[in-house]
Amino acid sequence: MSTSRRWVQDFSEGSREQRDLLGGKGANVAEMTRILGADRVPAGFTITTAACVAYMEGGSTAPEGMDAEVAEALARLEAHAGKRLGDAADPLLVSVRSGARESMPGMMDTVLNLGLNDASVGGLAERTGNARFAWDSYRRFVQMYGNVVLGIDSDRFEEAIAAVKAARGVELDTDLDAAALEELTRTFQTFYAFPQDPHAQLDGAIRAVFDSWMGDRAVTYRRLHRIPDDWGTAVNVQQMVFGNKGDTSGSGVAFSRDEVTGEAEPSGDFLVNAQGEDVVSGVRNTQDIRDLRTVMPEAHAQLMEILRTLEAHYKDMQDTEFTVEEGRLYMLQTRSAKRPAQAAVRFAVDAVAEGLLTEAEALMTIDAASVETLLSPQFDPSVDYAVVATGIGASPGGAKGEVVFSAAAAVAARAEKRDTILVRPFTDAGDVAGFAAARGILTSTGGKASHAALVARGMGRPAVTGASALKIDVRARVLRLPDGSTVAEGGFIAINGTTGEITLDDVPVTAPGVSDELETVLGWADGIRRLGVRANADTPDDAARAVELGAQGIGLCRSEHMFLGERQPLMAAVILADGEQERTAAIERLRPLQEDDYERILVALDGRPLCVRLLDPPLNEFLPEPHELPEGSPERARVESLQEENPMLGTRGVRLGILQPELYEMQVRALFRAAARVPGADVEVMIPLVDYELELDFMEDLVARVADEEGVVRGRDYKFGSMIELPRACFLADRIARHADFFSFGTNDLTQTGLGFSREDIEARILERYIDVKILDRSPFETIDTPGVAQMVRMGAWLGRKTKVDLKLGVCGEHGGDPDSIAFFHDSGIDYVSCSPPRVPVARLAAAQAAIADRRF
Amino acid sequence: MSTSRRWVQDFSEGSREQRDLLGGKGANVAEMTRILGADRVPAGFTITTAACVAYMEGGSTAPEGMDAEVAEALARLEAHAGKRLGDAADPLLVSVRSGARESMPGMMDTVLNLGLNDASVGGLAERTGNARFAWDSYRRFVQMYGNVVLGIDSDRFEEAIAAVKAARGVELDTDLDAAALEELTRTFQTFYAFPQDPHAQLDGAIRAVFDSWMGDRAVTYRRLHRIPDDWGTAVNVQQMVFGNKGDTSGSGVAFSRDEVTGEAEPSGDFLVNAQGEDVVSGVRNTQDIRDLRTVMPEAHAQLMEILRTLEAHYKDMQDTEFTVEEGRLYMLQTRSAKRPAQAAVRFAVDAVAEGLLTEAEALMTIDAASVETLLSPQFDPSVDYAVVATGIGASPGGAKGEVVFSAAAAVAARAEKRDTILVRPFTDAGDVAGFAAARGILTSTGGKASHAALVARGMGRPAVTGASALKIDVRARVLRLPDGSTVAEGGFIAINGTTGEITLDDVPVTAPGVSDELETVLGWADGIRRLGVRANADTPDDAARAVELGAQGIGLCRSEHMFLGERQPLMAAVILADGEQERTAAIERLRPLQEDDYERILVALDGRPLCVRLLDPPLNEFLPEPHELPEGSPERARVESLQEENPMLGTRGVRLGILQPELYEMQVRALFRAAARVPGADVEVMIPLVDYELELDFMEDLVARVADEEGVVRGRDYKFGSMIELPRACFLADRIARHADFFSFGTNDLTQTGLGFSREDIEARILERYIDVKILDRSPFETIDTPGVAQMVRMGAWLGRKTKVDLKLGVCGEHGGDPDSIAFFHDSGIDYVSCSPPRVPVARLAAAQAAIADRRF
Repeated sequence: MSTSRRWVQDFSEGSREQRDLLGGKGANVAEMTRILGADRVPAGFTITTAACVAYMEGGSTAPEGMDAEVAEALARLEAHAGKRLGDAADPLLVSVRSGARESMPGMMDTVLNLGLNDASVGGLAERTGNARFAWDSYRRFVQMYGNVVLGIDSDRFEEAIAAVKAARGVELDTDLDAAALEELTRTFQTFYAFPQDPHAQLDGAIRAVFDSWMGDRAVTYRRLHRIPDDWGTAVNVQQMVFGNKGDTSGSGVAFSRDEVTGEAEPSGDFLVNAQGEDVVSGVRNTQDIRDLRTVMPEAHAQLMEILRTLEAHYKDMQDTEFTVEEGRLYMLQTRSAKRPAQAAVRFAVDAVAEGLLTEAEALMTIDAASVETLLSPQFDPSVDYAVVATGIGASPGGAKGEVVFSAAAAVAARAEKRDTILVRPFTDAGDVAGFAAARGILTSTGGKASHAALVARGMGRPAVTGASALKIDVRARVLRLPDGSTVAEGGFIAINGTTGEITLDDVPVTAPGVSDELETVLGWADGIRRLGVRANADTPDDAARAVELGAQGIGLCRSEHMFLGERQPLMAAVILADGEQERTAAIERLRPLQEDDYERILVALDGRPLCVRLLDPPLNEFLPEPHELPEGSPERARVESLQEENPMLGTRGVRLGILQPELYEMQVRALFRAAARVPGADVEVMIPLVDYELELDFMEDLVARVADEEGVVRGRDYKFGSMIELPRACFLADRIARHADFFSFGTNDLTQTGLGFSREDIEARILERYIDVKILDRSPFETIDTPGVAQMVRMGAWLGRKTKVDLKLGVCGEHGGDPDSIAFFHDSGIDYVSCSPPRVPVARLAAAQAAIADRRF
Repeated sequence: MSTSRRWVQDFSEGSREQRDLLGGKGANVAEMTRILGADRVPAGFTITTAACVAYMEGGSTAPEGMDAEVAEALARLEAHAGKRLGDAADPLLVSVRSGARESMPGMMDTVLNLGLNDASVGGLAERTGNARFAWDSYRRFVQMYGNVVLGIDSDRFEEAIAAVKAARGVELDTDLDAAALEELTRTFQTFYAFPQDPHAQLDGAIRAVFDSWMGDRAVTYRRLHRIPDDWGTAVNVQQMVFGNKGDTSGSGVAFSRDEVTGEAEPSGDFLVNAQGEDVVSGVRNTQDIRDLRTVMPEAHAQLMEILRTLEAHYKDMQDTEFTVEEGRLYMLQTRSAKRPAQAAVRFAVDAVAEGLLTEAEALMTIDAASVETLLSPQFDPSVDYAVVATGIGASPGGAKGEVVFSAAAAVAARAEKRDTILVRPFTDAGDVAGFAAARGILTSTGGKASHAALVARGMGRPAVTGASALKIDVRARVLRLPDGSTVAEGGFIAINGTTGEITLDDVPVTAPGVSDELETVLGWADGIRRLGVRANADTPDDAARAVELGAQGIGLCRSEHMFLGERQPLMAAVILADGEQERTAAIERLRPLQEDDYERILVALDGRPLCVRLLDPPLNEFLPEPHELPEGSPERARVESLQEENPMLGTRGVRLGILQPELYEMQVRALFRAAARVPGADVEVMIPLVDYELELDFMEDLVARVADEEGVVRGRDYKFGSMIELPRACFLADRIARHADFFSFGTNDLTQTGLGFSREDIEARILERYIDVKILDRSPFETIDTPGVAQMVRMGAWLGRKTKVDLKLGVCGEHGGDPDSIAFFHDSGIDYVSCSPPRVPVARLAAAQAAIADRRF
């Protein structure tokens, strides 16, 4: 930029490094201009973010010199284009687009065809020989200007269009002829004082973009995404080019590689004699980009060359928009291509092989969360099916089978090798055996972090939750669909946990294995990441799968899951025991079972560490519902006495262990004995729900006593540690650390208590509304709440290490499998995350990305 | 202390300022020696806490010179007494007592009669002419030494005593003659190697006291009470004196003023020819201290003089122990007298009038918590009654009336002016109307911080909770007593909420007013305290009572309490409304009622501030139970859909306000309109359960809009603020403060979420066990958890003031009426506390004490 100018920069002067000054859009257009040459990219200029900041500071007044600089830039653009803005015979038309440093969907976007007025529309019609095109462009401009710049309700325009279509008896906008479009334009002009002066149009549009930066939507969006108010937005003014000037013109979108498979061949669509929005809208059937070779061979060759250039330059697969105007190719936009997991992995592997990217660079191009979808069975994408209802895609993959309404029915069907879908209004711990036995889970309530969703993801079972249009009558064993028809127990159903769709069609389901490409990519990740990755697994099968997917151990073995299913009566007997002796006997019946569980898990782990969390949930989860027991019976009275108003905040975790130390003692003994039988076993005893140092002290004594009796030695044979999952524990972590070899942050419960927000109750009732009113952008159970709960984790980690510099720190909440959360844990000095087995590859990848972002590899 | 000595100090050398070095007991004995003269206090010496610390640092080895200094001190004591330790003819006997800086009940206490052995017991018998006394003393010494010094189980001694009594056919210990006691002594000596050498006895006792400092009990106690390990304990060795040497000897306890009424006349008991422990044990009928004037006129006159001296010296009412040995008065102990509230207040007023104390000094002598008992109706203390069951004294005072099992029945009876006791297994928000209508509350579950207890205290209703021996059958409307008998609805019952007792006797109940003395004392407190005191009150009556008790406003008006009772159906109609229009209509029916409530409260407040918390509890609290509605009905389906797993963590507070803004809008409008009708009205709008800045932002906009419509102005006509009652809010208080004029810390919910500990569920199941195993010493809902939850409050206060230096900070949890918590709030810069009306005087007093302790008045 010449030194005399302060507020405006031509596209030909900029580069992608100037994103802060030019915004994302302006910087990319400038970069393309720079590397492809000024002839390839329609010319224009950017009014910088600095101008916006000065405009705001001046109380919505353009800073001194800005208007003059805009006029000069426009003059340069006119000279370059050989047309003038507002020329009645051959008008220069421009687009005006906002563009902040980060993409901000809440802001004003684009005004096209600026420069048209009652005088120049005729000139455009003559020049293009297409009156309909000219009036359609003008009609669109008047509409966009009114709506986007002046904030007139879009419904008013749409109603006017509908009225004209009704009057003319046509159905599609494209069926409106020039006269109809002219009539519409006139009607639109009655909605507001349309500025006929093109310079006033431009001035108004620029100011509207600046003002939109401080508009409610943008302010709210920034607050939510923590974007500073003083960044400001840039404004891009670009000469319009038209792909609708006849058969030597056209518009299209092109990807530098296949956007579905990632294959190293460009893909995309185009239309001859059309504008870009026609390609996107799907009004006409587009042609494959390969056909461009035949239709416009020169433009095709140029485009292929440009795609290679852009990809090499940006070091990522590109998603571009282009227009051919009378045989001349223009590039309008380029950006990194969004792509499904398989394409992302394929690109990464190919790009490294081609020498385009380093391994670290290649890893950064993959959306870590997406790789989970590569590992679960899927509906065959080539088959269509009729959707009967839609819920939330809570655990990815496809599943089909007979409808069952109880865990018991699922277990029974499994024994006969029949596939089932477990259908419940919602699920709880008593249903877990059914998750293992069924192929998939369907509920009518709950969101992505409901019990059903969590357990299903943990077990790698597809699940659709919150399908609220379904009526599930568990007693009558009937599922009622929205159309009023019903499916009885045993009837067929199929669910797509990736999309949330439910169908009665027998869609083929395919189960992709871990591809060689994914193995390659994960291998690079393992070489780079600092953060360890373990799995949350409760059974020998889960443990084996976790190891297969690359887990370095088990970070959370929920011992209570072993007490469910057929063993539930044994556990109920412990709880309902009449007197000490009966209780001890009941506990002793459980011990050999636990011992066997642990032994088989340790064998599967082959020397990797096993962290066992002692009994955590409220006892009533193991008991029948009170109303299932005879009224007045002692069992019922006991069961009723164990009901709690808020079980989440009740008699759980270490509180149980202190009330009934025999249970914890049995679990610890079983673990030590199992370890003694497996060479190289590495075991960790973890105490849940610790609030007070003295609770852990109590348990440290208990475990030490059992260790003495079993002849095992702390440090050598086992480690002892604490869950940190309550706000108080984070505040007192320095004291708790005195008794612990390790901490594991239970971020699910920490989120529930830190926010006073119950997962089950809230996701069903509150979350949607909170996202609507922009208080939240996603569930805090999905990605850790960075300014709040995450700071509690940081505080706990810091205080813990203050006491013990080598305290081992893990995270075993669902957040351990979420890439954004993993980045935070990496930054906070956590040693490892632990997540459900299908998330292990996600976590390996995300951990590597965090290390790369941190330049710590 | 002479410069050559380092570890031992004679009583005659010390003073009460040396509490850190000599411990509490040693310092007080030294102080008495100093002010009353060495002849008045049996001589002795203290082995200092410094010696204990050196002993511990030396790995349980006495520091160099200590043994020699003890030997020298003993020699001085022998010279003073004219007797030698171990002298077979006339032995010197001593007591050995531990005594730390703070009283520590978990530690070793006292060994008496040290110095006796097989040789000297005969000498003592001869000198006293009382062989039984000599052998009883010896027996006690062998028993105490074995138990206290060597840790031998006390059961073994008690079993041996029982065996001897059985063999001799006697019932009381005092019936055992010298021969029996000799036999017992011999038996005891077989339990361990009893050291016959008195110097070895002394040495062993001193070391045992030191070792007890690091014993498990003491360590646990210190951890719990945050007493540093490196304080150490002192050991006091004192010459024994005997009140049982005939009719010119005696022992007694004496208070410097009447310990029940506080009247300015000494009180107490004594026994002629007896030891101190006989007076305390109640084996013999004691004589009133006034009779001492007749029996031993000289000793009496000396004692009266000494009591005056001690009180003037210590500036507090004293509780002393004395012994008269052959006509000579010895003072053994003095300490501040424990006393009931009425005596404490009387003493304070008299002491200031007498010029003994300043107002500030007088305030510090009152146990602030105790004054609550002065304000509630009480069982007539002069009347005996038969206790049929006992629960927890959850809200003080006496109440009696007909048993009712539902709020509705209580309300109906109230309409006919009949007194009732509301009897429920437990209570919830639906029962609140019954609290107002009944005289008292009785439940079979829940502790001091259960819903029943909280609401009862809030309303000043006596309550007994957790009377678990009662079987309350609400359906059959029958109360079954532990003896199997029953009381039907309408039957008579009386409860003592001060003691937890339940009786069927018609005990007279008296209602003391606020005494003139209490008014005087509270007036001083108001002149001294910095912390404001408001009340939590929800009705015009409560507001009037709060003002009467000195509240400076209402800090928490729980608007939802106005929706209970007869208005519950109106609220249920709002929640169950079918569509927007029906809901608006239902809300509009509530508005005039709310307006009227607020107007009457504002009139009662006469210009004092009213802080209204908008609707807080989960909606289902206003609804009938699902099973009360017809199966399959839409009402039942809707009610069922509103049931939550963990309502405490569910759709409550601001979450409700965001889901159904019309409700909050109605409440705010009603408040503004009421305020417009009451001159000088000062209103504050408070949003509950805020987690996110944007929640408060949303509500700020809503309230501002209603304010605009009603023509009221923030700052001038109302203030807007937030509850801070979730851990996240404490972490993000700087952001939340941007939208708030004030914060009010809701420490009840903050404790529940910060600890992940539900009040209702936990106090019923966990607390007792936690106190047993010494993890807690009281409920965290009673006194704020200082190292945990209180730090969250401090963090929230600090961050809030970081954003707004003049942010007003209140506390409106139950902790606002707890003296220990109030001291913390004072220190943390909180502006005011708000508590239930009967706690207002407690809070005024405690706030003044905190200011005095802080020297800030």
